[in-house]
Amino acid sequence: MDIIVLKPGATSKELRNIVKKLEGRGFKSHISKGTERTVIGVIGDTSKITEDENSAFQIMPGVEKIHRIIKPFRLASRDFKPKNSVIKIRGHSIGGKKIHIMAGPCAIEKMSTLLKIAKEVKKAGATFIRGGAFKPRTSPYSFQGLGEEGLKILAHAREKTGLPVVTELMDPRDINVVLKYVDVIQIGARNMQNFRLLQEVGSHNKPVLLKRGLSATIKELLMAAEYIMSQGNNKVILCERGIRTFETATRNTLDLNAVPVLKNLTHLPVIVDPSHGAGKWDLVAPMSKAAVAAGADGLMIEVHTKPEEALSDGDQSLKPEKFKTLMKELRLVAKAVGRTI
Amino acid sequence: MDIIVLKPGATSKELRNIVKKLEGRGFKSHISKGTERTVIGVIGDTSKITEDENSAFQIMPGVEKIHRIIKPFRLASRDFKPKNSVIKIRGHSIGGKKIHIMAGPCAIEKMSTLLKIAKEVKKAGATFIRGGAFKPRTSPYSFQGLGEEGLKILAHAREKTGLPVVTELMDPRDINVVLKYVDVIQIGARNMQNFRLLQEVGSHNKPVLLKRGLSATIKELLMAAEYIMSQGNNKVILCERGIRTFETATRNTLDLNAVPVLKNLTHLPVIVDPSHGAGKWDLVAPMSKAAVAAGADGLMIEVHTKPEEALSDGDQSLKPEKFKTLMKELRLVAKAVGRTI
Amino acid sequence: MDIIVLKPGATSKELRNIVKKLEGRGFKSHISKGTERTVIGVIGDTSKITEDENSAFQIMPGVEKIHRIIKPFRLASRDFKPKNSVIKIRGHSIGGKKIHIMAGPCAIEKMSTLLKIAKEVKKAGATFIRGGAFKPRTSPYSFQGLGEEGLKILAHAREKTGLPVVTELMDPRDINVVLKYVDVIQIGARNMQNFRLLQEVGSHNKPVLLKRGLSATIKELLMAAEYIMSQGNNKVILCERGIRTFETATRNTLDLNAVPVLKNLTHLPVIVDPSHGAGKWDLVAPMSKAAVAAGADGLMIEVHTKPEEALSDGDQSLKPEKFKTLMKELRLVAKAVGRTI
Amino acid sequence: MDIIVLKPGATSKELRNIVKKLEGRGFKSHISKGTERTVIGVIGDTSKITEDENSAFQIMPGVEKIHRIIKPFRLASRDFKPKNSVIKIRGHSIGGKKIHIMAGPCAIEKMSTLLKIAKEVKKAGATFIRGGAFKPRTSPYSFQGLGEEGLKILAHAREKTGLPVVTELMDPRDINVVLKYVDVIQIGARNMQNFRLLQEVGSHNKPVLLKRGLSATIKELLMAAEYIMSQGNNKVILCERGIRTFETATRNTLDLNAVPVLKNLTHLPVIVDPSHGAGKWDLVAPMSKAAVAAGADGLMIEVHTKPEEALSDGDQSLKPEKFKTLMKELRLVAKAVGRTI
Repeated sequence: MDIIVLKPGATSKELRNIVKKLEGRGFKSHISKGTERTVIGVIGDTSKITEDENSAFQIMPGVEKIHRIIKPFRLASRDFKPKNSVIKIRGHSIGGKKIHIMAGPCAIEKMSTLLKIAKEVKKAGATFIRGGAFKPRTSPYSFQGLGEEGLKILAHAREKTGLPVVTELMDPRDINVVLKYVDVIQIGARNMQNFRLLQEVGSHNKPVLLKRGLSATIKELLMAAEYIMSQGNNKVILCERGIRTFETATRNTLDLNAVPVLKNLTHLPVIVDPSHGAGKWDLVAPMSKAAVAAGADGLMIEVHTKPEEALSDGDQSLKPEKFKTLMKELRLVAKAVGRTI
Repeated sequence: MDIIVLKPGATSKELRNIVKKLEGRGFKSHISKGTERTVIGVIGDTSKITEDENSAFQIMPGVEKIHRIIKPFRLASRDFKPKNSVIKIRGHSIGGKKIHIMAGPCAIEKMSTLLKIAKEVKKAGATFIRGGAFKPRTSPYSFQGLGEEGLKILAHAREKTGLPVVTELMDPRDINVVLKYVDVIQIGARNMQNFRLLQEVGSHNKPVLLKRGLSATIKELLMAAEYIMSQGNNKVILCERGIRTFETATRNTLDLNAVPVLKNLTHLPVIVDPSHGAGKWDLVAPMSKAAVAAGADGLMIEVHTKPEEALSDGDQSLKPEKFKTLMKELRLVAKAVGRTI
Repeated sequence: MDIIVLKPGATSKELRNIVKKLEGRGFKSHISKGTERTVIGVIGDTSKITEDENSAFQIMPGVEKIHRIIKPFRLASRDFKPKNSVIKIRGHSIGGKKIHIMAGPCAIEKMSTLLKIAKEVKKAGATFIRGGAFKPRTSPYSFQGLGEEGLKILAHAREKTGLPVVTELMDPRDINVVLKYVDVIQIGARNMQNFRLLQEVGSHNKPVLLKRGLSATIKELLMAAEYIMSQGNNKVILCERGIRTFETATRNTLDLNAVPVLKNLTHLPVIVDPSHGAGKWDLVAPMSKAAVAAGADGLMIEVHTKPEEALSDGDQSLKPEKFKTLMKELRLVAKAVGRTI
Repeated sequence: MDIIVLKPGATSKELRNIVKKLEGRGFKSHISKGTERTVIGVIGDTSKITEDENSAFQIMPGVEKIHRIIKPFRLASRDFKPKNSVIKIRGHSIGGKKIHIMAGPCAIEKMSTLLKIAKEVKKAGATFIRGGAFKPRTSPYSFQGLGEEGLKILAHAREKTGLPVVTELMDPRDINVVLKYVDVIQIGARNMQNFRLLQEVGSHNKPVLLKRGLSATIKELLMAAEYIMSQGNNKVILCERGIRTFETATRNTLDLNAVPVLKNLTHLPVIVDPSHGAGKWDLVAPMSKAAVAAGADGLMIEVHTKPEEALSDGDQSLKPEKFKTLMKELRLVAKAVGRTI
């Protein structure tokens, strides 16, 4: 049901036209005349009314405002599927009691470095390796990633450690090469509304880790998930990674409110990336613990053996020993909120 | 030290004028000529250069930009006082290992209700009672608080429970009546830059709980603390309570990044108000746990026996039984991060 | 009329309780049962329902959301008074065809400087003098203004030029001294929600220039105007002066959209302050012209004979000759949109 | 030149290490020891230091902060090319004295409708036709555009009216079909940081209209332009179209400050899209006039003969008669600021 509020001076002819247009699309009208205003309750399955149709009603003479009652996302909605989705990846389950830690460097550089990092994070308790082969960089003059070479290194690290791997896809033209090597496809914050890319990953059966855009509302994040799911792929993991605000003391403002709000609105798993979210390595530990306490199903953490030589985002990476300490602390917090790591 | 960057085409006369002006104020200049630009290092105690003087340098011919190295706050800075400040209030210490919970209704309504709430929160483990007698309401037609009558009720609740009380001061003309009844004076978010009010509470010896403004940067929050401290009152407790962003799913965006960032920049205690920060009672529990995990020294939580009859902000208040459950969970999280409640 | 949307599974008992509570407050209910949801139309003068009462309904069992139809401001609303308010000040009319330019230094410094500036801006066509005697400064160590001495200088400048004067009031305790000397009382952006100060200026008959807060919505600005008007003072001039966003290239983001939006929602005059809004003198000219083209009723512009020696905000002040040039350009733009200056 | 500020307690060994690393990359160091801090001036062509290398210096022991003096964009910078770029398209020049108006529907629907709109806007004075064949829609259930069929209709309208056409490209896989039919390729706000798409359009010789992202800073917009230009295509037109802020009264906040700020920083033409920027048709006229007064080189305006039947964004489209009236008003404002339309 939608609610159409008429303007104070709306005429009865205007009212009739709206009712007629509604009937033409198969809806019934329920009219309430108040002391100052008239309101139309639209009866029928209003979830079928698209944004565009709604927009067309919006500008009919006499209409002041339309309140939509139905949520614009369906497949992603907890109303549609009340039980938590648990996504299985090579024997791991994301979205259940266990919290998963995805760790690794921002960008994949060379085989030996990645292998070293992968072994360290595995030892500390991470269950996934993350690392970028295609890097979305603000400057065209920055390192853009190793491409397929990086994917091969990543796949080799999986072979050696047994940990499944996560990497970003930036271009629909790279879908096949990415599908070939990785276990989870990441869609980065800057591509959250790259709708063609969403449709592309939606038409395969590989799990997708969808990062929230820098200025995306929670509703828009769920609409982006809906884009993927509407193509048939339900294996979507949502990721909060910091939004853009006026604050300049942190690179972004990691929005942990998003965790309980999302858990309430959707059945999909929700993870948090405190490395990009806060943007400085010394904030990663407190924000990781806070994310777990807020109910996150996983964390994505940048780890590098030599951050000072990293080709990307070295200043937000943890060294393996700090990561190991953090993992111990995280286990205590997870236990305090009834979860495991 | 400050750094003055000259424009690409700055003349040597412009350079000389700047150097002369600096010398006139007792500073030495250290000039670096690069391949494209000249930069002046200002040597001396540049913390004495006020914003206004800096602004005057900014518009001198030849100047492109000034980078200030010194932080604009001093008394509030951890550089100035490396050790954590611990604020003592009626036998309680805020800023130490123990995390304090300040609980109570948004607005003080009547004696019996407040007493009931106060006893419940004390039983559950709260160590302070919060409640407003002067209420900053967006609408002039909303309940504005009971005024002095409310303060008396608050003082009575302290007498009956032994818990110290926190209440908001909105108007410098009310300072004496507030000083008479309360233990901690709260400065609300909307008054964070009401500089006269800050100066007023700075000139008394009563602890001040200073809430971050809705669009205040962390630096501005610390400058507001500096206003209070510059008058002689060092007993300042900072409070994160949510900032304003584009997100509409929550009333505000509780910025937990502020907790570790503040703990790094200042020696003052930092508490979090998840009730106003998120604005919905079902977000209070997860965000409270997250705040403790992030390192907060205390929490301010709205509790009401009958939220549905509350005269203010009923929709963000917890009922006593939910508060009791939350306190149990918080104790586990506090323990996990090496603190107690 | 308000609309109460029930949750998908709301019971008929929950519905009955809501209807009963509405009846207890004198409202009738109009119930629409849709295919998925039930909606209650609240009939009667719902503008009497306060925020607090609404909040109490919000948390009743079965309620999902309440859509309020009535605007929360009344006296300030164009629904309430369709015709533009024109505010008369010493023979000048603000809110009519003529656009008024208020010019002068950020802070009043000394008699001779202010007189010189006042004469220059008058000659160029300004119709009001602006200047601060009480200065809200971010740092307690910055120049705080001359106080009453500054007001005397301002009144003297009025005497010499005949131009009415505008100055800021920061503290309700200064109301009498400000009333004695000035023609328009300015409420600064940081005090837009200093409700006690609003009530104080609302209880006198002096025109008030109310600046929009840095993170205030347009609705909140109108609620602040309502605070003043609810005390009996209808002479309110609204002022857009820049909001806080993520952008760092400008000090604030001057929101010119606010001009047509406000002109649509309220009958009060709307002026723009491009000096604070953009924060750099070289942006003042283009943004002033844009403000006039967008429909502003006036501009507030900082002018200083020696910006490099100004005690406050020198970097956003125009020199008199630049101001004179700007005034000529503004007259052309004003004419192009059917106004005069 | 860059400036490296050391921490208060930085050791001389730390200083030596930094100097050594700088020397290793071919830079000289100029060391200033102040009373509290030491600062290193980096001498040489520091524009060669990438973000990544900078990040690596950032985390060296002893470093507190690095101030970069060089702007990260070069080809787009006015420092690099002081004179305005004028982009020629089928006999029209964008970036000169004449202001260009690009008008048309949000989405291309059918031949007859587009032809009718195209003729009307041409008659009123528009010099380009705009219309989307590939539509980035928030919901997967909204109309996604006609694809190549739409491009054909657009090309046909050009043939009939002689006006060049602008359309959006969303997917690098569609580049050839878009190149075949259109005169200006639009990159939408949601794709401003779709770096692969930027590189794709950068490697052809077709003019690109680049829209600012919803939360993109002005610097990031220029970096996106730099991505295109770094591939060899200098024909970039920048477009301000509204940013995301906390304000909810408008769909976005059209940031007109961006116009003079961009004109100052870059030689590229700057146009404004008030239809998306404000999001309501009744704000389009005042904001269009304001944009011209602020110095825009062009406007992009949605026009539709039957907005109530439009398949996309009908509520922000002008009808031809309103557009005609607006064009007359715009000519007056353009003249007032020394331009023509």
